[in-house]
Amino acid sequence: MTITINCDMGESFGIYTLGDDEACMPFVTHANIACGFHASDPQVMWRTVRLAKKYGLDIGAHPGFPDREGFGRREIKLGRDETAAMVIYQVGALKGFLDSEHTPLSHIKPHGSLFGMAMKDEGMAHGIADAAEVFGVPVIGFSNCVMEDVYRERNIPYFCEFYFDLDYDDRGWQIITVEHVPVAPDVAVARVLRAVNEGKVLSVNNKEVEVRADSICVHSDTPGAAAIAEAVHNALKSRLPRQADEDSAG
Amino acid sequence: MTITINCDMGESFGIYTLGDDEACMPFVTHANIACGFHASDPQVMWRTVRLAKKYGLDIGAHPGFPDREGFGRREIKLGRDETAAMVIYQVGALKGFLDSEHTPLSHIKPHGSLFGMAMKDEGMAHGIADAAEVFGVPVIGFSNCVMEDVYRERNIPYFCEFYFDLDYDDRGWQIITVEHVPVAPDVAVARVLRAVNEGKVLSVNNKEVEVRADSICVHSDTPGAAAIAEAVHNALKSRLPRQADEDSAG
Amino acid sequence: MTITINCDMGESFGIYTLGDDEACMPFVTHANIACGFHASDPQVMWRTVRLAKKYGLDIGAHPGFPDREGFGRREIKLGRDETAAMVIYQVGALKGFLDSEHTPLSHIKPHGSLFGMAMKDEGMAHGIADAAEVFGVPVIGFSNCVMEDVYRERNIPYFCEFYFDLDYDDRGWQIITVEHVPVAPDVAVARVLRAVNEGKVLSVNNKEVEVRADSICVHSDTPGAAAIAEAVHNALKSRLPRQADEDSAG
Amino acid sequence: MTITINCDMGESFGIYTLGDDEACMPFVTHANIACGFHASDPQVMWRTVRLAKKYGLDIGAHPGFPDREGFGRREIKLGRDETAAMVIYQVGALKGFLDSEHTPLSHIKPHGSLFGMAMKDEGMAHGIADAAEVFGVPVIGFSNCVMEDVYRERNIPYFCEFYFDLDYDDRGWQIITVEHVPVAPDVAVARVLRAVNEGKVLSVNNKEVEVRADSICVHSDTPGAAAIAEAVHNALKSRLPRQADEDSAG
Repeated sequence: MTITINCDMGESFGIYTLGDDEACMPFVTHANIACGFHASDPQVMWRTVRLAKKYGLDIGAHPGFPDREGFGRREIKLGRDETAAMVIYQVGALKGFLDSEHTPLSHIKPHGSLFGMAMKDEGMAHGIADAAEVFGVPVIGFSNCVMEDVYRERNIPYFCEFYFDLDYDDRGWQIITVEHVPVAPDVAVARVLRAVNEGKVLSVNNKEVEVRADSICVHSDTPGAAAIAEAVHNALKSRLPRQADEDSAG
Repeated sequence: MTITINCDMGESFGIYTLGDDEACMPFVTHANIACGFHASDPQVMWRTVRLAKKYGLDIGAHPGFPDREGFGRREIKLGRDETAAMVIYQVGALKGFLDSEHTPLSHIKPHGSLFGMAMKDEGMAHGIADAAEVFGVPVIGFSNCVMEDVYRERNIPYFCEFYFDLDYDDRGWQIITVEHVPVAPDVAVARVLRAVNEGKVLSVNNKEVEVRADSICVHSDTPGAAAIAEAVHNALKSRLPRQADEDSAG
Repeated sequence: MTITINCDMGESFGIYTLGDDEACMPFVTHANIACGFHASDPQVMWRTVRLAKKYGLDIGAHPGFPDREGFGRREIKLGRDETAAMVIYQVGALKGFLDSEHTPLSHIKPHGSLFGMAMKDEGMAHGIADAAEVFGVPVIGFSNCVMEDVYRERNIPYFCEFYFDLDYDDRGWQIITVEHVPVAPDVAVARVLRAVNEGKVLSVNNKEVEVRADSICVHSDTPGAAAIAEAVHNALKSRLPRQADEDSAG
Repeated sequence: MTITINCDMGESFGIYTLGDDEACMPFVTHANIACGFHASDPQVMWRTVRLAKKYGLDIGAHPGFPDREGFGRREIKLGRDETAAMVIYQVGALKGFLDSEHTPLSHIKPHGSLFGMAMKDEGMAHGIADAAEVFGVPVIGFSNCVMEDVYRERNIPYFCEFYFDLDYDDRGWQIITVEHVPVAPDVAVARVLRAVNEGKVLSVNNKEVEVRADSICVHSDTPGAAAIAEAVHNALKSRLPRQADEDSAG
C-alpha cells in the first residue's frame, strides 16, 4: 500500500508569513491549502496553488473555522448544516484557483479545532462529509474517532494521518499544541516507520496504542521542517505514490 | 434578440434579512447571488441557490468588495491581480453550492463599488475579466464604459444592464444611490421599453443619452419590488428567454 | 429596592436594521449597546449612544463574541485572558463614543453565548469581571450560576436580570431561543411582578424555581416590543430609579 | 525644541509576528499602537501596552482602515463621519487597555492609507481631527498637506514626522513603499539631523524640499531596526524629552 506525505500550506496572510512552504514541497506528495477562513487570503491561495502545481503535488483544501485571530484553533460549536455550508464555501473558493490552473481537487483535510471537534462530534463529522460528497474527494482525518466511523459508514474514502511531532494520548489521539516542537530527523523517521509498519505509537503514558498511518503530516512551520521532511521522504521512498516520487527525484 | 431580467439576491446575512428574494423570483430570469464578501454567508448562499433553482433561474455570481459594513459600496482601490483573486475566490465559493445542487454557473455580475470602479479603472475591469475567463461565463456590466471596451477587446461575452429606478448622467451612466426609490410599475415599463426598443434614456439633465439594455435589473429591496418586477416581466414576455417564460407561466 | 428595565440596543449593522430601539427607549432605564463584535458598527454605536442619551438612559456596554454571522450566539471557547482582552476592547470602544457625548459608562452586560458560557465557565466569568474592574462598573448577569458566585466573591456589583419572554429550566436558567416569541403585555406584567415581588418563576416543567430580578430585560426585536415595554414600565413605575421615571414622564 | 522618536508597534496578529517591538523600545519616546483594524488584536494590544509602559514610553493610538488583508494600505474612500466613528472606536478600544494599566493616552497617529488619504482629503483629515478632539490629544501627521492645514485651523496640536528610510517627492511628501528598505545608521542620522536642523530633505528628483521634523519615525520591521533606532536616538539625545532620555539611560 502506498503512503502519502501531506503538509498544511498557504497559511500566510497579507503581509504576514507563516512557514516555508516551498522548502518542504520537494518532499511532500499532498498539499493541504488553507482557504481564507483560519488563515490565507485569495492572493496567497492562488500563489500557493501555482507553487504546489509546479512541484507536482496533489492539491487539497484545508478549511477551518472563521477565526483568523485564533488561527482556527478556538472551538466554535456549529451544527451539521452550518459546518457543511462553511466547508463547501471554502473548498469551492479553493477550487476556483485550481480551475484557473487546470488542476483537479485532490482531497479535503479539516484544520485545527474543526478537525479536533469533528473527531468527537457526529454533526460536524457529517457536515465535513457532506462537503466531501459534493466535491467527490476523500478526506484526510484521524483513526479511532467519530469521524472515522462516520466516513466508513457513508463509504467516503478516508485516509488517516500520523504526526511524528505530536504526543498521543491513550486513545491514540494526537495532543494538539500551539507550537510544534521540532523532532530530530532520525526520531521522526523511527516513529513514522513504526506507525506505518506496525500501526503502533507510544502514548504519553508509555502505553502502546494502535494508530493508522495512511499519510504522514509534516508541519512547514517547525524549525528545520524541510530537513525532517526530506528524511521522512527518503525513508518512505519506495512506498510513496509513483508520480510524486518521480517528480521529486526529477 | 432576447432580453433578460436580473436581480441581486442572497444579500441577507446571519439574522439580518434584506429584500424579499422569493417574491421576485417568478418574474426574473437571472439571479445574481452575493458571495459572502459585501453581504451573505455560506448558509444564505446555499439557501438562495436552492430557491433560485426551484424557480428555474439562471444563477450567476455577484461578487463584491470585502466590506460588509459598507455593503460593498465603499470604494477600495485594488490592482488587477488582487481584483482577479478576490473575484475568483467568491465565484468559486458560489460554484461550490451550485455543484452541490447540480446547477451550472451562468454569469458574473460585480456588485456596488467593484462594479462602479471597474467602469472607470482598466486594471479592475481586467481583473473581473480574468475571473470570467477562468469560469468561462459572460459578465453583466454597463454600456459606455471602460469595462465594455475591455470585454469587447478580449472577446468576453458581455451583457449591458439597464436600471429603470436609477437616474442617468449625461454619459449614460446610472447614478448609484444608497436607497432605491420605488418607481410606479407603468413608469418602470415605459423606461424599460424605451431603453430596449430605442436604446435611449433621459438623463437627469433632460438630455437624451444612448444606453444598451440587454438585461433589466430589478432591485428586490425596493418597496413593492415584486409588483414592479411582474409588470416589467409581462411587458417583455415575448422577448424573454423561452425557458424562463415557461417556468414562470407554469 | 429599585428595579431597572434594560434593553439590548444598537444591534443593527451597516444597511441591516434590527429591532426598533427608539420605540422602546421611553420605557427603559438602561441601554446595553452592542460593541461591533456580534453586531453593530462604529456609526451605529455612535448613533445609538446619542439616541439613548437623548432619552436619559443609563448606557452600558453589550460585548459579545467576534461572530457577526452567528450574532454572537455560537459558542466559542476562550480562556480568561482572551475573554478579558476581548471585553476590554469592546467596552473601551463604546466608551470612546460615550466620551464624545460626555456621558459615563453605566454597566456591562455580556451578550449571547458569551453570557451563556460565563454562567457555567469560571474562566470566562472571571474574564468579564476583570474587564468590569478596569472600568469600575457593575455587571448585569443572571442568578443561580457560576457568574453570580464569581462576582459575589470578588465584590463586583452584580445585578440579576429577568426575562418575561423566555422559558426557564429547573435550575432557574433562562432557555435561550433564536427568535423571541412575543408575550401578551398582561402576561409579561404578571411574570415580572411575581419575579420581582416573590422571586419566583414557573419552569417549563411546572416547577416553582427561585430567581433574582434586579432588572427586567426587554427585547427590542420582538413584535410589539414597545407596547410590552410600556406595560412593564407602568407596572414597575414606583420602583424604577427616580430619574428615569421623570424623564419618561416628562 | 524637543524632538521625539515614534514607532508603530503592536502590529502582530494572532500567531503572526511583525517587527521586533521590544528591541526598539529603549530608543523610542512614543509608541503608536495598532488598534485591531489594519493589524493587531485585543491580546496583542494589551501585551504591547504593558511592554511600552515598562519602557516608559508615551503611548498613542495607531488607527487604520478595517483591512487586515491589505494591512491598511488599500485606499478605502470614507466620508468625514465614517472616518471619525472608525477612529473613535479604535482609539477608545486602545484606551481600554491604557485604563487597565493606569496610563494616559498620549496621541493619535493614523496608519497607512488612512494617513495617506487624509493628507489630501479634507473630509478624512477632519474626521481624524474630530476623534482627536474627543480624546483631547495631539495628532502626529505630516507637513505640507491638507491635514496640516486642517489641524492648524482647528487649533489641534499637530506634530510632523520625518522618515529617514523613505524617499520624498518634490512636494515634500514621503513615498510609501510596501517594504522598508534598510538604511545605514550613519545615513539615517545624517538625514535626520538635516531635517531637524535645517528643515530640508533631498527629493527623489534631487530637489531640495522643505519638511518639518517634530518627530522621527522608526520602523520596527526593517532589518536592523534597533541598531538604526539607537543611532538616531544617540544623535538626538540632547533634544529628546527629558523623561524618555532618563528612562532609556537608566
